[in-house]
Amino acid sequence: MTGFRLTPLAESLPSTVPFVGPETQERDNGRPFRARLGANESVFGPSPKAIEAMEREAREIWKYGDSTSYDLRHALAEENGVRPENVIVGEGIDGLLGYLVRLTVTTGDHVVTSDGAYPTFNYHVAGFGGTLHKVPYVNDHEDPVSLFHKAAEVGAKLAYLANPDNPMGTWHDGETLMRAVEAHLPDGTLFVLDEAYIEFAPEGTAPQIDPDDPRVIRTRTFSKIHGMAGARVGYAIGAPELIQAFDKIRNHFGMNRAAQAGALAALRDRAYVTQVREDVAHARNRIAAIAQAHGLSCLPSATNFVAVDMGGDGALAQRFLQELGARGVFIRMPGVAPLNRCVRISCGRDADLDILDAEFGPALDAARQG
Amino acid sequence: MTGFRLTPLAESLPSTVPFVGPETQERDNGRPFRARLGANESVFGPSPKAIEAMEREAREIWKYGDSTSYDLRHALAEENGVRPENVIVGEGIDGLLGYLVRLTVTTGDHVVTSDGAYPTFNYHVAGFGGTLHKVPYVNDHEDPVSLFHKAAEVGAKLAYLANPDNPMGTWHDGETLMRAVEAHLPDGTLFVLDEAYIEFAPEGTAPQIDPDDPRVIRTRTFSKIHGMAGARVGYAIGAPELIQAFDKIRNHFGMNRAAQAGALAALRDRAYVTQVREDVAHARNRIAAIAQAHGLSCLPSATNFVAVDMGGDGALAQRFLQELGARGVFIRMPGVAPLNRCVRISCGRDADLDILDAEFGPALDAARQG
Repeated sequence: MTGFRLTPLAESLPSTVPFVGPETQERDNGRPFRARLGANESVFGPSPKAIEAMEREAREIWKYGDSTSYDLRHALAEENGVRPENVIVGEGIDGLLGYLVRLTVTTGDHVVTSDGAYPTFNYHVAGFGGTLHKVPYVNDHEDPVSLFHKAAEVGAKLAYLANPDNPMGTWHDGETLMRAVEAHLPDGTLFVLDEAYIEFAPEGTAPQIDPDDPRVIRTRTFSKIHGMAGARVGYAIGAPELIQAFDKIRNHFGMNRAAQAGALAALRDRAYVTQVREDVAHARNRIAAIAQAHGLSCLPSATNFVAVDMGGDGALAQRFLQELGARGVFIRMPGVAPLNRCVRISCGRDADLDILDAEFGPALDAARQG
Repeated sequence: MTGFRLTPLAESLPSTVPFVGPETQERDNGRPFRARLGANESVFGPSPKAIEAMEREAREIWKYGDSTSYDLRHALAEENGVRPENVIVGEGIDGLLGYLVRLTVTTGDHVVTSDGAYPTFNYHVAGFGGTLHKVPYVNDHEDPVSLFHKAAEVGAKLAYLANPDNPMGTWHDGETLMRAVEAHLPDGTLFVLDEAYIEFAPEGTAPQIDPDDPRVIRTRTFSKIHGMAGARVGYAIGAPELIQAFDKIRNHFGMNRAAQAGALAALRDRAYVTQVREDVAHARNRIAAIAQAHGLSCLPSATNFVAVDMGGDGALAQRFLQELGARGVFIRMPGVAPLNRCVRISCGRDADLDILDAEFGPALDAARQG
C-alpha cells in the first residue's frame, strides 16, 4: 500500500496557515468573542440591497454561477472607467493572488515584498516555489522605491505593495506611487498593487495608472467597504493580455452565484458606501481616543482599522492582544519588528467599541504586568 | 514598457475553457433558455432549509467564513462514518481537483483518465504540466481495469474515474471497483474516485474503501442531489496525511460563509434528499419515454441525467443539440467518439420536460435533415 506521491515542492511546503480564524480561536477558548475586531471585516455589514440580492439568489443557487461574471465585470469596468477586458473577477483577492502567482512564478523565480506585509501573498509565492525577498518598511510605510530597487537587483517577476497598507494603515498618494513606477520599476517586473482598502482612503490615493499598462495589476475586493468578506468576491484590473491569461488556469465556475448578485447590488448602492465610509471614520477616531486615554498613540490610517502603538516591544503587544482576547475582544497584530510594537484594531460599531473601551485598560494593565 | 512575464508553462497553455456556461450562450442567442437541462444541475432546487440557512447567513456575510469549515466537516464525517481528519471541504469538486493535481502533479508526471471523461480534471492536469493518458470507455462504461493497467504502464501519479460516470450515466457496483483496486491499482498511483452522483445510484455503488487507505481519494459535492451548484461546496474523503496536505496550498478563507451554512442544513434534511431522488427517478423515466416515442433508446443511468443514443454519429447529435438550443432547451453532449453519438439531458421538473417533449420531435427532424 504505497499510496499517493506529492510533488517535491508540495512535500517541502510547511503545514502552516497564514491566519488562524476567529472561529478556531473561539472553539479553543470555549466561548465566542464579544467584539470581532481582528480581521478588518466590516462590522457594519453589507448594504441591505446586497443582502436582498443574496437572499433572492439563494433560491436560484441550484444553477452554477455565470462563469464569466459578465454583469458584475461590466459594472466594475464602468465604475472604474476601464473596459471589461481589463477586469477579472475571482474568489476574493486571496484567490486572485494565487492565480497571479501561479501564472508568473515557478521554482527559481524571484518576488519582492515588504517585511511584515500581507502574509497570504507570501504563502502563495512559497506555494509555487518562488523565492521571496523582503525590504523593510520605512517609517511604518511600505516603500515603493526600495521595493523596486530590490526587484531590479534580484530580477523579480512580481513586486507586491498594498496602498493603503495592511497591517499599518499608512498610505502614499497616487502621484508618489506613479513617480516610483516611472523612475524605478524595472523591466519585466509586474507591480502588484493591492488596493483592498482604497475606498477608505483620501481622494488621490489611487494612482492614475493606464489600465492597459502591462507593468501593473491592481486588486480590489468586496470584503472591506462592501462588507462581504464571507462572500469571496475580488477583482483585478490590468492589461487585457494579462487579464486573459487568468482564463488559462482559473476555476471557471468557481464564483458563488449569490455572491455575484450581492456584489453587483453592493456596487450600485453608493449611498450605503458613503455611509460606511463615515461610520469607519467615526470608529477610527474613537479607537484613537480610547488609545489616547491610556497614553498611547495611533498611526494615521486610510483603512478600516487602526494600528495602535503600544509603546513597547512585540512581546508587550502580544500580551495585550492575548489579554484583550481573554476578555472577549478579537484583534490581530503585525508579525515582525518594528511593526509588531503595534496592535491592529478593526473599526466597529459603537457597541463593539464600548466593549473595547471597557476592556482596554484592564488588558493593558495585565499586559504590562507581564 | 516590458510588463509581465508568464511562466513557460502558463505561456504554453491554451486559452480554451472546459465549458461554455449557459449564460454565455443566452447572451449569444439574445434570449434565455426555456429549459435548463445541460449542466446536470438540480432543477428541483436546494432544500427549503438550506435556502433559509443561506438567507440567514447573508446578513452575517461581513464575516469571513470559518477557514476550517469545522461544523460542516464534522457533520460530513459523521454522515460518512469517517473521522473529521478524513474530510476536506473545498470550493466544489472542481476546486478540490485543482488542489489535488497541484499537490501531486508537475511537469514530467503522468496521469490517466478515460477518453471522454470529465474535462475539468484534464484541464487541471494540463494546467500543472502533467501528461495525460486516456483509455477508451468499454461498452459506455469507464473501465477501471484498463485504467489501472495504463497507470502501471506510464507510472501515473493519479488515475481518475467517476462512478457513476459523467457524461454517460453508467456505473459499476462497489465490489467491482474494490476488486479492480486490489488486483490492479499500481503502487504509487492515487485513485481519484469522483462520486459526484453517488446519491442517485443504487445501494452498493459506493465501494467500501477504508477511509485511511492512502491509495484512494473520493470526491463528493453539494452541486448535484443537494441542488447547490452555485454555492461551490465540495468535499473529499481520504487518508489524513493526504487530507492534511491540502492545508499547505489551499485558499484557507476561500469558502463562502452562506454556502457552508446552506450545505450543513442541506445535509441534515434527509427527507428532502429522498424526495429529490424520487423526482429524479421520475424525470429519468420520462426522458427515456420521450426518447423512445421518437424511436431512440437511452443508456441506463445512476445519475440525475440521461444519455440519449441519437442512433447516428457525433455530427447528428451535435445538430440535434443545436436545434434543441435554438428552441430554448439547453443540453450538452459528450466530446469524443463513440460517446458522442449520444446527447446528455439533465433531469428536470415536469414543466421543463413538457418543453423538452414538445421540442424533441421538431429538433430531431431538423437535425436529421441537417
